[in-house]
Amino acid sequence: TWLRRLRSPRAWACCGSCRSPPGGCCPGVLPCNGGERGLQVLGGTRDHPPAYTALRERLLAAVVTCFKRHGAAAIDTPVLELRETLMGKYGEEAKLIYELQDQGGELLALRYDLTVPFARYLAMNKITNMKRYHIAKVYRRDNPATTRGRYREFYQCDFDIAGQFDPMIPDAECLKIVHEILSDLQLGDFLIKVNDRRILNGIFAVCGIPESKFVTACCTVDKLDKVPWEEVRGEMVGEKGLSPEAADHIGEYVQLHGGLELIERLLQDPKLSQNKLAKEGLGDMKLLFEYLTLFGITGKISFDLSLARGLDYYTGVIFEAVLLQQENEHVEEPVSVGSVAGGGRYDGLVGMFDPKGRKVPCVGVSIGIERIFSILEQRMKASGEKVRTTETQVLVATPHKHLLAARLKLISELWAAGIKAEMLYKKDPKLLKQLQYCEDTGIPLAAIVGEQELTDGVVKLRDVATRVEVDIPREKLVDEIRRRLEP
Amino acid sequence: TWLRRLRSPRAWACCGSCRSPPGGCCPGVLPCNGGERGLQVLGGTRDHPPAYTALRERLLAAVVTCFKRHGAAAIDTPVLELRETLMGKYGEEAKLIYELQDQGGELLALRYDLTVPFARYLAMNKITNMKRYHIAKVYRRDNPATTRGRYREFYQCDFDIAGQFDPMIPDAECLKIVHEILSDLQLGDFLIKVNDRRILNGIFAVCGIPESKFVTACCTVDKLDKVPWEEVRGEMVGEKGLSPEAADHIGEYVQLHGGLELIERLLQDPKLSQNKLAKEGLGDMKLLFEYLTLFGITGKISFDLSLARGLDYYTGVIFEAVLLQQENEHVEEPVSVGSVAGGGRYDGLVGMFDPKGRKVPCVGVSIGIERIFSILEQRMKASGEKVRTTETQVLVATPHKHLLAARLKLISELWAAGIKAEMLYKKDPKLLKQLQYCEDTGIPLAAIVGEQELTDGVVKLRDVATRVEVDIPREKLVDEIRRRLEP
Repeated sequence: TWLRRLRSPRAWACCGSCRSPPGGCCPGVLPCNGGERGLQVLGGTRDHPPAYTALRERLLAAVVTCFKRHGAAAIDTPVLELRETLMGKYGEEAKLIYELQDQGGELLALRYDLTVPFARYLAMNKITNMKRYHIAKVYRRDNPATTRGRYREFYQCDFDIAGQFDPMIPDAECLKIVHEILSDLQLGDFLIKVNDRRILNGIFAVCGIPESKFVTACCTVDKLDKVPWEEVRGEMVGEKGLSPEAADHIGEYVQLHGGLELIERLLQDPKLSQNKLAKEGLGDMKLLFEYLTLFGITGKISFDLSLARGLDYYTGVIFEAVLLQQENEHVEEPVSVGSVAGGGRYDGLVGMFDPKGRKVPCVGVSIGIERIFSILEQRMKASGEKVRTTETQVLVATPHKHLLAARLKLISELWAAGIKAEMLYKKDPKLLKQLQYCEDTGIPLAAIVGEQELTDGVVKLRDVATRVEVDIPREKLVDEIRRRLEP
Repeated sequence: TWLRRLRSPRAWACCGSCRSPPGGCCPGVLPCNGGERGLQVLGGTRDHPPAYTALRERLLAAVVTCFKRHGAAAIDTPVLELRETLMGKYGEEAKLIYELQDQGGELLALRYDLTVPFARYLAMNKITNMKRYHIAKVYRRDNPATTRGRYREFYQCDFDIAGQFDPMIPDAECLKIVHEILSDLQLGDFLIKVNDRRILNGIFAVCGIPESKFVTACCTVDKLDKVPWEEVRGEMVGEKGLSPEAADHIGEYVQLHGGLELIERLLQDPKLSQNKLAKEGLGDMKLLFEYLTLFGITGKISFDLSLARGLDYYTGVIFEAVLLQQENEHVEEPVSVGSVAGGGRYDGLVGMFDPKGRKVPCVGVSIGIERIFSILEQRMKASGEKVRTTETQVLVATPHKHLLAARLKLISELWAAGIKAEMLYKKDPKLLKQLQYCEDTGIPLAAIVGEQELTDGVVKLRDVATRVEVDIPREKLVDEIRRRLEP
């Protein structure tokens, strides 16, 4: 439904950066990359022209609608954080944090994500219970040239539930939200992979890996969605120094994926069932699947033991949604084309900020809005669909000279009635130019007043698409415009 | 109308930072300032808790509605700009620009306002014609301790019209927009002061001030809204080194304010009418008042020769809206309580970015959203009004144990129908706790399923305010909820 609204037949074709010269519009929503040398923005950041902004606003509106449907409140936190707030939370990625110049003793940085500021906010305000969403820009000192499609400034779009609750109920809701959003946006078939850090750590333990190597083993396993097992095994044995036997043993587990039956099987696994962490994780995974069954969404959920997720702070359930490519129908299994949402449980992060280490368990999801936006943008470009960048309903026009006063009076009346109206900023514009402006920018109606109309107390209302003109008594104009614009 | 929507009788009383302990809510929309020492945000920045964010979103929605009514498109630009983009545009204020640490040769800064990035955007993309709005955070390295109510990170809210048009038509629309927004927001009586930099410069010229001192004279005149003429005169003669005669002569002009008749009078002024700049400015001012008369808004417009505005880049019409205090009714003239919008024409800024100096005339207005927000916040606090921070319509509840599955199934059905629904994340919550949650957070309806309701195929729908409960057949529940929630 939200996508249908984007598909206006008489939409403005332009990126919004080139209203003039008329007719010289760029072909889609991609920003013009013209511009003088020497006049530029920082690499890895970009201007968002009107067509981009309009499409993004609609996409975000669809996401926010879902977050609100689930009872979340919005918060905002500063882009500037004290540097100490961010330090020690991101592991190796901390080198990508943007730092500011010393401003008289204050060490500042630009926020790196929305999760750490949320945890800081909870701890600082002693909040133990909250369901919030936050959509805002974050900053990474990434090298934009070497990491394609990754920006230094980009939007994150997070939903989190903080609080001590009965197991897996909030976790299940996070997965439900991902399912709803990806379904609503009609991005094609998708799969939500689910795993649990406790299960992974349990596997490492029963395979004889020392606890000090859990994190690094986790990172290596995480590559399984991009490279085959042989390569991952090579890295484990080579770089990470695991024994070939341990690596093979891990391989037997992490290549498994399935549903409830796999959980049941692993719960019976003679080794895993002896490991406390793994047992807890599997028990909760079973409960999670029960709840997901009640939500009716297990069809798109896969318990996937290769899912590990990069970030340090996860402590329980982790998940990641991928879109499945269906174009090559001869391929046996659908191919994943990239992650569009991810998240998990992080029960220790708030405690890192609390002076007494008081924990607030949290689970949350981040919607990969930039990636989804790229997909929608490419799709619209391919289909030749256009985005209207303004919502103007009526152009107030005049057919001949010396009628600026008449236009100013009429447009005032329309604005007062809440009608979205524009006029050209010329004293005596040509009628053709005014109508052309309607065509170019997708304005559906023109309200035309000439001497004759003024004398008769009417306004000529023109349907721009059909070119049909009807005289409407001035006092009925607003009602008639509203009637015409009814959905 | 937008304000009425804020005044929900059963609204959630809490700042959103303290859902628990129940009943222990803070009294208003002001953020809790609790928090451990040592755990803090940068002075001059702040977290925006849910009640703040909800109120701000509604305020911004009202402003955006107006911008869209006037046909503006939205753009966004990066928070990070190359430092050279910002340098040389703000005069002395440049010392307040936040600079980033050198990141391998890139000199970066945080944007200081939205106007300079807009001019950079126009020049970079060779856009000669655009009507855009932009609402985003800007950054100032101000000392927050010494400047009360001024933040280092705050929202700006700008509408600008770029392009070569017939004189005063876009300028009049900017004033119309200020008038509409301040009227819509019901902030009380206001006045929009208008002047023109060309008139001011003409006055300085005919008073014998050398052109090199125009800018500094302008700054001194700008203080007239805060201090009496005698003090301003003192600064002119003392610090600025103007002759007492010149200062007195300037004083005769800049203390004038009025409407069309004042413009006519100055057009006949034997000295001013001989000055080319002043004559142009006065001619355009007359035209502006003609258009404002057609818009029907001259009642709140004052041609005020003391208005000068701080920024360097204005070249023509300038304006500023102030709220008028009406509480002390014994005061003869209403007292201004501060600027809530301002703007003007800046025809030279885009040319500063264009390698060939090609100019794109611009006029724009900035709505002082932070100040307006403070006023609304204070007003709500004083009246004891509350802001709901979530939009949840129904709480799905159970009256006794072992019914988690029933809640999960029912809430899925509601979500699928687009109903905003929550449930407590407990396996077996007490009914009283569930109903208390409705009261605390302003949820108007509770949908209750027990064994009996499951057997009968109904759901008990409870109106939280009246406590009336009615059994509704399950298949009719969604329709009944929608019917109840109709405005």
